[in-house]
Amino acid sequence: MGFLAGQTLVFSFPMKVLASGSIVGKREKQGPLGPYFQQVMEKDDLGEKCWEKAERRMTERAIHTALANGNLSKQDIDLIIGGDLLNQIITANFIAAKFDSPFFGIYGACSTFVEGLILASTAIEGGYGEKVLVFTSSHYQTAERQYRTPLEYGDQYPPYKQWTVTGAGAVVVGKQGQGVQITHATPGKVMDWGQKDPNDLGCAMAPAAAETILQHLKDLRIDFKDYDLVLTGDLGKEGLKIVRKLLNQEGIDPGDKLNDCGAMVYSSKQKVGAGGSGCAASAVVFDSYLVPGLLQGRFKKVLLIATGALFSPLTYNQGETIPCVAHAIALSAPGQEG
Amino acid sequence: MGFLAGQTLVFSFPMKVLASGSIVGKREKQGPLGPYFQQVMEKDDLGEKCWEKAERRMTERAIHTALANGNLSKQDIDLIIGGDLLNQIITANFIAAKFDSPFFGIYGACSTFVEGLILASTAIEGGYGEKVLVFTSSHYQTAERQYRTPLEYGDQYPPYKQWTVTGAGAVVVGKQGQGVQITHATPGKVMDWGQKDPNDLGCAMAPAAAETILQHLKDLRIDFKDYDLVLTGDLGKEGLKIVRKLLNQEGIDPGDKLNDCGAMVYSSKQKVGAGGSGCAASAVVFDSYLVPGLLQGRFKKVLLIATGALFSPLTYNQGETIPCVAHAIALSAPGQEG
Repeated sequence: MGFLAGQTLVFSFPMKVLASGSIVGKREKQGPLGPYFQQVMEKDDLGEKCWEKAERRMTERAIHTALANGNLSKQDIDLIIGGDLLNQIITANFIAAKFDSPFFGIYGACSTFVEGLILASTAIEGGYGEKVLVFTSSHYQTAERQYRTPLEYGDQYPPYKQWTVTGAGAVVVGKQGQGVQITHATPGKVMDWGQKDPNDLGCAMAPAAAETILQHLKDLRIDFKDYDLVLTGDLGKEGLKIVRKLLNQEGIDPGDKLNDCGAMVYSSKQKVGAGGSGCAASAVVFDSYLVPGLLQGRFKKVLLIATGALFSPLTYNQGETIPCVAHAIALSAPGQEG
Repeated sequence: MGFLAGQTLVFSFPMKVLASGSIVGKREKQGPLGPYFQQVMEKDDLGEKCWEKAERRMTERAIHTALANGNLSKQDIDLIIGGDLLNQIITANFIAAKFDSPFFGIYGACSTFVEGLILASTAIEGGYGEKVLVFTSSHYQTAERQYRTPLEYGDQYPPYKQWTVTGAGAVVVGKQGQGVQITHATPGKVMDWGQKDPNDLGCAMAPAAAETILQHLKDLRIDFKDYDLVLTGDLGKEGLKIVRKLLNQEGIDPGDKLNDCGAMVYSSKQKVGAGGSGCAASAVVFDSYLVPGLLQGRFKKVLLIATGALFSPLTYNQGETIPCVAHAIALSAPGQEG
C-alpha cells in the first residue's frame, strides 16, 4: 500500500510504463519536436466523413501503436481509463466499446492524461490487475467547433490564444516488467482566480499549475534541482510566464528546467498564437520525448504536470469564470531510485 | 492490497460508507420512495437564475448534508471524485473549486455514482488517504435541454421514455470507522447492441447491466440468493424487463430480488413514462433507501449496478449508436462478512 505525504501519493513500488504510443497531425510534425514524433496522420480527417470520427480513428491508431510497442494484445488489458475534450467524452466511449475490458471514463479537460495515469497507478497499487490502459486525444477541428466557434466563421486569433494540438497518446501502466517509472503523484485542487476569457486559457490554468508544483515540492521536501525537467501540460508561452512568476514569488527559480508541452510543440513561425493546448499536448510529448529521453538516459527524473481549463461554453455564456486543475506525476528512468 | 477475481475487485478490507446525504425535487418526493427522502427542494430552481446554477446549489446541499451526517468538515476530505450529466461536468467542477482538496472529474453518464465509489475504494485500497468524497447529480431541466430538446418545444413523450430524476447524492468513503461496507466492485465493459433511440435508453443500457451482473456472479461464484436485493441504476421499467429476460436466458431467475432505482422513484400515476433516469437515480436511492436499510437490518447484502447510456446528441445526429456501461458494487451491513 502506498501512502499520502500531504497531497502527494507515494507508491509502494514504482508503476511501470510498459508501453506507449502516439500520433500527431501534420502541423505538429512540422514543429520543433517533429523529429521525435514517430507517427503522423496523412490527413487530419483520415478520410472520415466528420472530424469526430477522425479523432476516434486517430486515437485508435495511438492505442494500437502502444499495444504493438509493448508486444501486448487487447486481451492483456485489465482496465481501461480514458477521456477527451468532447462532450460526453465520445472519443473515449466509442473506442472502449471495441474492447472487452472494463472502462472508466474521466473528464479533466487537458489534465485528462495525467489524471488517467494517476487513477491507473492507484488502481494497480490497490490490487486492480496488472495492466491498465490510459488514453486521451484532442483534435483542432473538433475542439474549436465545440468550445469556441466553427472554423468557418473565421474568428480572429489573438496572440495569447493557443492552438489545440491534433494528436493522441496511449500508455499501458503495469506492475511488473521494465520501463519508465511513475513513483509519485500529486493530484491537484480546482483553482479559480476569476479568469473569464476562453481565448486565454493558459493564464487561467497557471495558478493551478503553480499550486500543484509547489505542493509537490513541499510534500516531498524536494526542489527543482531534484528534477532534470519540469513540464507543464498546455499553458502555452503566456501561461508559462505566469507560472514562472508565481514560482519566483515563492522564492523558487526554475531556471531552464521548466517548460511546457504545448509551448514546445509549435515554433513561433507557425503562427499558432501562444502555442499548443489540448489533452494531446502532454500525451504526445510524454510518448515521443519524455519516455525515450528517460529510457536513453537524457533525463533521470522528470515532473509532468498536466493542466486543465475546465471551461464550458455554457457557463461562459452565463457569465461564469473558468475553474482549472493541474495533476502531477513524477517519472524516473528505469532502475533509478524513486 | 485487494485482488482481481476475473473482472471483480475484492477489497482486502471493507470500505466504509462513513457518511452520506442526498436531496430530491418535489416530483421525486411525491413518488413511492417519498417517505425515505429526507431533504426536498422547495423549488426546482432554488431561486437561481438558471437551471445549471440550481443543480449546483442542490448538489452542494447534498454534500453538506453528507458531511454533517458524518460529523465531518471539508478539511477531513483527502480526495474528491465527482461527475454529472452536463457537458464538461460543470456541476462537479464548480463545486470542487470551493474545496481545498484534490479533485478527479469523471464521466460515466448515469453510471457516474458507482464509478466514483469504485475509484474512491481503489484509491483508499492503494493508500490514497482515509476519506474520499464522491458526489453526483442530475436535474430534469438541465438534462432535458442538453440531451433532447428544450422543454419549451413541448416534445412528445413516448411511454418507454424515462424522466430524469432531479436530485443529488454525496458519500464519504473511508478506511476506518463504522458504516455500510463496500466489499467488492465489478466495473463494467462498454457494450453497444446497436440501439439508436435517445428516448429509449433503458433498452440501450439493459445488455450492459445484464453483462455486469452475470460477470459479478460468475467471478465470485455466487447467485442471486446471496443478495437480499439487486438494484440496477436507471433502466426504468422497460429496461428492467429486458435485463430480466437476458438473465432468464442464462438460466437465472432473479425473482423479486431484482429492481431498478429509476423504476422505484416514480409511481405509474405520475405519468413519467417508464420511470426515472439520471445520475441521481442510484445516488438518492443509495442514500435514502439502501444505507438506512443496511444499517437497520432490513438488508444484509445488496448489489448496486449503476447503468450509464453514453449518449451524445452529436453522435446521434451523425447516425451513431448509443454505447452503454454498468458498474457494480457489493454492499453489506456493518459487521457482516463480505
